[in-house]
Amino acid sequence: MYGIILAGGSGSRLWPLSRELYPKQLLNIISDKSLLQSTFERLAFCMPEANILSITNTKHASNVKMQIQDLTKNPLVLSEPVAKNTAPAIALATKYIMQQTEEEDPVILVVPSDHLIQDNEKFSSTVQKGEKLAQEGYIVTFGIKPDYPETGYGYINILKPLEIGYKVKEFVEKPDLKTAEKYLEAGTYFWNSGIFMFKASVLMEEIKKYAPEIDKISNNVDFSKTKDIPFIEFDKMPSISIDYAIMEKSDKIALLTLESDWNDLGSWKSIYDVSNKDENNNVFVGHVIDKDSKNSFVYASSKLVTTIGLEDTVIVETEDAILACKKDKTQDVKHIYETLKKQNDDTHLVHKTVYRPWGFYTVIAQGKGFQSKILHVNPGQKLSIQSHNHRSEHWVVLNGTAKVVLEGKELILSPGHSVDIPVKAIHSLQNPYQEDVEVIEVQKGDILLEDDIIRYEDMYGRV
Amino acid sequence: MYGIILAGGSGSRLWPLSRELYPKQLLNIISDKSLLQSTFERLAFCMPEANILSITNTKHASNVKMQIQDLTKNPLVLSEPVAKNTAPAIALATKYIMQQTEEEDPVILVVPSDHLIQDNEKFSSTVQKGEKLAQEGYIVTFGIKPDYPETGYGYINILKPLEIGYKVKEFVEKPDLKTAEKYLEAGTYFWNSGIFMFKASVLMEEIKKYAPEIDKISNNVDFSKTKDIPFIEFDKMPSISIDYAIMEKSDKIALLTLESDWNDLGSWKSIYDVSNKDENNNVFVGHVIDKDSKNSFVYASSKLVTTIGLEDTVIVETEDAILACKKDKTQDVKHIYETLKKQNDDTHLVHKTVYRPWGFYTVIAQGKGFQSKILHVNPGQKLSIQSHNHRSEHWVVLNGTAKVVLEGKELILSPGHSVDIPVKAIHSLQNPYQEDVEVIEVQKGDILLEDDIIRYEDMYGRV
Repeated sequence: MYGIILAGGSGSRLWPLSRELYPKQLLNIISDKSLLQSTFERLAFCMPEANILSITNTKHASNVKMQIQDLTKNPLVLSEPVAKNTAPAIALATKYIMQQTEEEDPVILVVPSDHLIQDNEKFSSTVQKGEKLAQEGYIVTFGIKPDYPETGYGYINILKPLEIGYKVKEFVEKPDLKTAEKYLEAGTYFWNSGIFMFKASVLMEEIKKYAPEIDKISNNVDFSKTKDIPFIEFDKMPSISIDYAIMEKSDKIALLTLESDWNDLGSWKSIYDVSNKDENNNVFVGHVIDKDSKNSFVYASSKLVTTIGLEDTVIVETEDAILACKKDKTQDVKHIYETLKKQNDDTHLVHKTVYRPWGFYTVIAQGKGFQSKILHVNPGQKLSIQSHNHRSEHWVVLNGTAKVVLEGKELILSPGHSVDIPVKAIHSLQNPYQEDVEVIEVQKGDILLEDDIIRYEDMYGRV
Repeated sequence: MYGIILAGGSGSRLWPLSRELYPKQLLNIISDKSLLQSTFERLAFCMPEANILSITNTKHASNVKMQIQDLTKNPLVLSEPVAKNTAPAIALATKYIMQQTEEEDPVILVVPSDHLIQDNEKFSSTVQKGEKLAQEGYIVTFGIKPDYPETGYGYINILKPLEIGYKVKEFVEKPDLKTAEKYLEAGTYFWNSGIFMFKASVLMEEIKKYAPEIDKISNNVDFSKTKDIPFIEFDKMPSISIDYAIMEKSDKIALLTLESDWNDLGSWKSIYDVSNKDENNNVFVGHVIDKDSKNSFVYASSKLVTTIGLEDTVIVETEDAILACKKDKTQDVKHIYETLKKQNDDTHLVHKTVYRPWGFYTVIAQGKGFQSKILHVNPGQKLSIQSHNHRSEHWVVLNGTAKVVLEGKELILSPGHSVDIPVKAIHSLQNPYQEDVEVIEVQKGDILLEDDIIRYEDMYGRV
C-alpha cells in the first residue's frame, strides 16, 4: 500500500499561530509532534515509511521536508509551484507512485495533513477494510457518523450496504442548519473526512473520464530529474478539488465508517474542544495567570498573558499579533486574516520566527533603516554563500562558535566577537561544531528585503 | 497660594500599562500629557508655577522631574527614600514651603497627581472659594456629590452649612453597597476626592496635636542642602494617611463641593468610562482590528491586537504582558499585580522600555549569557562615564551620530559603525548633535544586572 499526504493549506484558520508561510499542519499545538508528523506516523502504522509521499506547495516544501526528516531518513516530498487545489495534486502524486513502484497497480491511501486522529489502531483497521473495497475497484471514502448538525462540513449520502461499507449515492456541500438537521435525522448522511483510497488505475481512469485536462497535463510531467513539479506544466492545471472533479461524478464511490476519533481542528474552538480542561473548563498553554475565568482557551507563546473573569473566550498570543475572540466566533478568524492580507500586513504571512533548513531566525527589532535578528544555526549547518546589494550586516556571536567566511577570508568567532559585512561583500555563516550557534545580526540599509540576497552556493539547493 | 502634588503611587491598578517603577501619574492614556503634567497645569491655573512643589518616592523622582521639566524651567521635587503614606509627605512638604516662603502663613492646596479633572476653570473657582475658608482657619476638603452608591471611595458626612461650604461631621471609610445606598439617599455624604487646603500654621498645629511624632521628625529635617529627604529621619516616620492622622480627628474640617468634573481613574473600567466611544461603544487605541465587538476597551501599545465578538471586555497589550479582563472585574487587576510581585516576576516592576534622564532604552532580546537593548539618546545628552565588572558590551549605531569615549580614546560613530567595549573598560556614550541617536547594545557575560555599573562622572548627579 502507498500513501499520499496532502500537505498544502493556507494557514488562515488558526491565525495568529498559523501563517500563510507556516500553516496548521506544521504546528504542534496538541502534542509535541506537529499534525503533519502525527499524520506521517499514522500512515507508517499502515504501510512502509518509504511508501509515504507528501505533496505540498513550494513555499512549504523545506519546512515539510525538515519535519518529516525528524521521523524518517529519506522524506519523499513533491512540491507544487502554485496552489491548484486537491485534484491536480492527487493526480500527479498518483502518477509519481505509478512511475516509481514495482507493483503493477498499487492501492493508494490519501489523507489530509492537518486533522487530528489519535487512535492509530482503529484508523489502521478501517484502512485494512478499505483496501479490500479498493481492490474490488471502488474509490473508497471515509465517513464520520455525525452526532450533531454541523454546517461546516460536506456530507456524503449512502445508497445501500455493500459486503463491507456502503455504496455512495451522492456528495452534498456544506448545508444550512435546517438541512443539516434533516441529514442527521435521516441517518444515511456522513461527514466527509477528506480521506480516501483507490487502486491507481481506477482513479486515473476516472480522471481521464471526468477531468481529461488533468490527465493530459499529468502525463507530460517528468519526475525523473526532480520532485519539484515544473511551473510551465502545472500552471495550466485547472484549480479544482477532487470532490468536484471526480467524487461527485463517479459511480464507483463507496463509503466506510471511520472507526477512530477524528477532528478537523478547523478553528480555535475545536482546538479547545479536544484539549484537556482544568476544573473551571479552561485550557491554559504557556505563561498564563488567571483569576475567575471559565470555559476559556488561553495560549501564550512568548509573553505573560493574564486573564480575569473571562467566559467562553479565546486568547492567542504570538510575538507580533494577539487574537481575542468569543469562542463561538472563532470561525471568523479567517475574515481577520483576509483583512490583513488585503492591507498588505505581513502579520498574515510570516511569524517573527522563521524556519530555515539551517535553523531559524527571529526578528527582534525593526526601525528606520535597520532590522535586527537573532540567527540560530544548528550544528553542522551552513547558510548559503551570499551577498546583499542594499544592506550591510553586523554579526555579534552570542553562543557557540561560528565560522564566518568574508571575501574569502576565514574567521572563527567565539561569544562576544563580531564582524562587519559591508554592502556587496560575499560572506557565509557556518556552524561546524556540536553546540548550537546564536548570532545577533544588525542589518543597516535603506532597502531591507528578504529577497535582497544573491546566493553563490547553498548546501540546500537554493541557488 | 502654594501647591503640593502628591506624586507617589504604586502602579498596580492600571497594570500592565502602569508598573511599580512607572506608575499611573506618569502615563498619558487620556491625552498627550501625563496625569502628573495635567495636574501641574491645573495648579498653574491657580498659582505661580514656582509655588508648585511635587513630592514623590526616590524611585520615581527622575521621571517626575523630567515630566515637569517639559512644562516649567525649575521643577521643585522633594523625594522620599521610603514610602510612608500621605501624612508624613504632606507635613514635610508644608515644612519645606514654610522654610522657603517669604509669606508669613501661606495657604496650601494639596492634590493627588493621578486623577482626571478636565475643567480647570471650574476647579480654579472652587479653589478660590476654598482659599477664603482656609484663611478662616479651616482645613478644607473637596467633596464630590455622589450620583450612584460607589463602594470604592471614602465618604465625608457634613454637619451644617457655613457661609461658604459646610462644616464636616465625620469621615467614613469605604462602605458596603447597602451603606453606600443609605449615604446616597441621605444626601449629606460626599466622595472624598483627596484634595484639600489649609493655612500652613493650621495644619501644623493639628499635626502637633494629633500626630506629634510626625511633627517632631519633620522639625529635624534640614532642606538647606538637598531636596532628597534623608533616610535616617524619614524611616522613623509612622506610615499613616492624612485622613487617619488628622482629618478623622480634627474639628476644623470644612467641605466644599468640587464644581469641576472628577474621575480617580482607579481601574481600566474608569479609563473606558471617560474615553470617547465609537458607534458600538468600543474604545480602540493603537493597531486594533475588530469584528463585531461591543462595549469593549482595547489598548494595543506595541503589536497588532485583533478582536472578534467581544462584549464588555478590556484588553491591554504591552511589550511583555497582556491583560484580558471582563470590564466589571478590572479592580481585580491589583490581585494579578500582587501575584506577580510574590512570584518575583519583574513584569509588575518595569516595562521593557525604561526612561532615563538621557533618553530611554528598550530590551529587545534576552537569553543565556546575553541581553540586547536599543538605546535612544536625546540630543545634547550623555550617559554616565562608566564601567562594568561582569559584562562586555558591543554597540552598533543605527541612527544619528554618536560620540563614544573608550579608555580615553574618542570615537565618532555614524550609522552602521560599531565598537567593542571589553569588561572593566571605562566608556561613555554621548549625543552631542541635533538628531536623536539610536544604538543597538549587545551585552555578553554570565552576570547581567542593571546595577553592575560603576559610575565615574554623570551629568545627572547619579555618581
